[in-house]
Amino acid sequence: VYLNPEKADQLIWLRARVHTSRAKGKQCFLVLRQQQFNVQALVAVGDRASKQMVKFAANITKESIVDVEALVRKVEQKIESCSQQDVELHIERIFVISQAEPRLPLQLEDAVRPDGEGEEEGRATVNQDTKLDNRVIDLRTTTSQAIFRLQSGVCQLFRDTLTKKGFVEIQTPKIISAASEGGANVFTVSYFKTSAYLAQSPQLYKQMCICADFDKVFCVGPVFRAEDSNTHRHLTEFVGLDIEMAFNYHYHEVIDSITDTMVQIFKGLRDNFQTEIQTVNKQFPSEPFKFLEPTLRLEYTEALAMLHEAGVEMGDEDDLSTPNEKLLGRLVKEKYDTDFYVLDKYPLAVRPFYTMPDPSNPKYSNSYDMFMRGEEILSGAQRVHDAQLLTERAMHHQIDLEKIKAYIDSFRYGAPPHGGGGIGLERVCMLYLGLHNVRQTSMFPRDPKRLTP
Amino acid sequence: VYLNPEKADQLIWLRARVHTSRAKGKQCFLVLRQQQFNVQALVAVGDRASKQMVKFAANITKESIVDVEALVRKVEQKIESCSQQDVELHIERIFVISQAEPRLPLQLEDAVRPDGEGEEEGRATVNQDTKLDNRVIDLRTTTSQAIFRLQSGVCQLFRDTLTKKGFVEIQTPKIISAASEGGANVFTVSYFKTSAYLAQSPQLYKQMCICADFDKVFCVGPVFRAEDSNTHRHLTEFVGLDIEMAFNYHYHEVIDSITDTMVQIFKGLRDNFQTEIQTVNKQFPSEPFKFLEPTLRLEYTEALAMLHEAGVEMGDEDDLSTPNEKLLGRLVKEKYDTDFYVLDKYPLAVRPFYTMPDPSNPKYSNSYDMFMRGEEILSGAQRVHDAQLLTERAMHHQIDLEKIKAYIDSFRYGAPPHGGGGIGLERVCMLYLGLHNVRQTSMFPRDPKRLTP
Repeated sequence: VYLNPEKADQLIWLRARVHTSRAKGKQCFLVLRQQQFNVQALVAVGDRASKQMVKFAANITKESIVDVEALVRKVEQKIESCSQQDVELHIERIFVISQAEPRLPLQLEDAVRPDGEGEEEGRATVNQDTKLDNRVIDLRTTTSQAIFRLQSGVCQLFRDTLTKKGFVEIQTPKIISAASEGGANVFTVSYFKTSAYLAQSPQLYKQMCICADFDKVFCVGPVFRAEDSNTHRHLTEFVGLDIEMAFNYHYHEVIDSITDTMVQIFKGLRDNFQTEIQTVNKQFPSEPFKFLEPTLRLEYTEALAMLHEAGVEMGDEDDLSTPNEKLLGRLVKEKYDTDFYVLDKYPLAVRPFYTMPDPSNPKYSNSYDMFMRGEEILSGAQRVHDAQLLTERAMHHQIDLEKIKAYIDSFRYGAPPHGGGGIGLERVCMLYLGLHNVRQTSMFPRDPKRLTP
Repeated sequence: VYLNPEKADQLIWLRARVHTSRAKGKQCFLVLRQQQFNVQALVAVGDRASKQMVKFAANITKESIVDVEALVRKVEQKIESCSQQDVELHIERIFVISQAEPRLPLQLEDAVRPDGEGEEEGRATVNQDTKLDNRVIDLRTTTSQAIFRLQSGVCQLFRDTLTKKGFVEIQTPKIISAASEGGANVFTVSYFKTSAYLAQSPQLYKQMCICADFDKVFCVGPVFRAEDSNTHRHLTEFVGLDIEMAFNYHYHEVIDSITDTMVQIFKGLRDNFQTEIQTVNKQFPSEPFKFLEPTLRLEYTEALAMLHEAGVEMGDEDDLSTPNEKLLGRLVKEKYDTDFYVLDKYPLAVRPFYTMPDPSNPKYSNSYDMFMRGEEILSGAQRVHDAQLLTERAMHHQIDLEKIKAYIDSFRYGAPPHGGGGIGLERVCMLYLGLHNVRQTSMFPRDPKRLTP
């Protein structure tokens, strides 16, 4: 609804939901809603409406869908409670298109109330499980509408940026015959007379496309992790934004492509999704997301030095714990004023077998993670592209060579040096918006305890 | 490689594959390839190259990746066998970046040979299973490169057209708790201590988004069918291009949105992918794809009349068999000169329970299929948006109401009239290009007998 004073005194038809309704003597005040917009409407006994019609309007249940014919009227005093503040509708005809049941499982105004607000007046907020159990209603709130419109924007910005850079979109299979990363945390599918697995990432297939001369590829699709983690940031099914590319001289070409893509996403959101960002902020306040150009790249050893200085005790080849990642995020923010950075050159020991060792120091590797507000959103690396070295690395990790034969064989007929990474869509949206649970940015989240709706 | 005469006499660096190599006395002729482009190159004993270097070059295995430094030279006579016909490269330095094993499982020139060509000279073609078993090499052929670049274009055109129309992209879960369409043909997943299913379509979730006020949505993602069909057009996993939208007056608004989207895809392919189309045609000749604007829409009864006239015997409420669909495609092509059309108003009896009956004739329904070259690429309908009617229709189909309770409940809190459909990406690509097997347009196809690579 772009109802504004320019439409004043026009008769219009409108389909909308009944957001609220309040009868008052010979009048009935409705708030009509379309997505994130709403407008006040009035049915009053008079020339155009009978007493019966006012009664009929007053009895329409909240969330019902109606068609109304109404006169647009400018108002003297702004209607603060509506998005369309300068006009109201004088309803002449009203039809119920779809009637909502009278008892809603949750109230929209409760679902968007900031935590703690209105507690003294005994106003309710809605807990997350109730929201998710009744997602069809919860998704109607201004906050949800904004979150998922922004998410749609992230996907579009990701693809458009990469397409401009010459990347080709690929579609990779989700049902696979062997668990490429060893078999832990993988879902099993019954497949006719045999069994199969759900892909934990498209990595093997992205790499096969590089070996097949597609040069630079991306894909957007579900990835599956049978991890029994009940945290704010783990899902058993999430959307992976995946990148893989051949490079010429140095794997930092890959890092530069990915960080530039992230920066284009951040800029696109900042420039085109301000309304959505502000809508979410009303319920969940957060600082604007900060980033640098070019993106800050720290080496693992530098990060360790910062952590040591802050009193953390950990060894050179230890992996970062989640609390240390968060602490590091705060230290980096203080020192460099950025919410986004790359941590490069992880210890080889903490990375998967297909990670390329650092040629100048075998303790480290050509691998990196990327962080937003101190949480990991991408893990990536230069991959080993030589079948012989890959075999050695797999044996070092005590991986059954028979199970990864197809993977290793992909590199036997000429493979260019290449690298890439996988980004979690829901985490990017959560952290960009400063939210605190990945279930808020997954329309229909899946975790060990939730399979519905 | 955009190597052309303008680059003549320049010294360049190039990374490419060795496509072929042929030693001849003091010279070695190579063909170097980058994706669909190739160029002739020469190492000759002289000032810049030793006898040893010629021997080294001659021993580089086919499909190895090399870096060369070379002088670009204009040639007098066009080199017919290469894509870059006006120049050749005089190699001064050559390095092997990645060595291919000497024995390739298939030869690229065999894999792109049109069926029957060169048979008298005993030249081989490669059968489909060999190609698919060695997909990393098969995808390097000019035909494969063209097919999958065009497929990437279809996805982009689909999304861009819908985004311009105000559609929102959504991400729907693939692991679901109940098989919404009754439980046949569904893959089972073990999910921690319980079991779950793989989504046969995103339909329930698309519809929930409509009930949640997203108004117009699309999604691109894998769909899974546990159907034991070993045909040229069935896969157990394929990519669905899905659309769902609320409409105001008539479900033909939905048909118009979908057909216009298809027309924009056809135009985009025709205008921007001619090279790819012609490349595929060299191996698999076909007629250019024809379509009308606006798209032809036939009613089911009209189609039956055409089939009856052509001698087919079938009842008014029978479904179309695959051969009859093909025959109808030929009849429509003859009469209307189009390879794309909509068949509207299917008999209610042959459609799923959630299909909206035709309000003016209960034998029929507000449902439609779309066809390319006589094969179905989309099935869609107006959906029942009233919980009461949906319950009645489910009972009529003897569906266990308990299993679809969540689905029916989605419509209890106000749902607008809506409709949509799902398009099979691989079929669209196959039929647009006039190919004859959907495995040619799936990078890593899955069928009852194939789970690898």
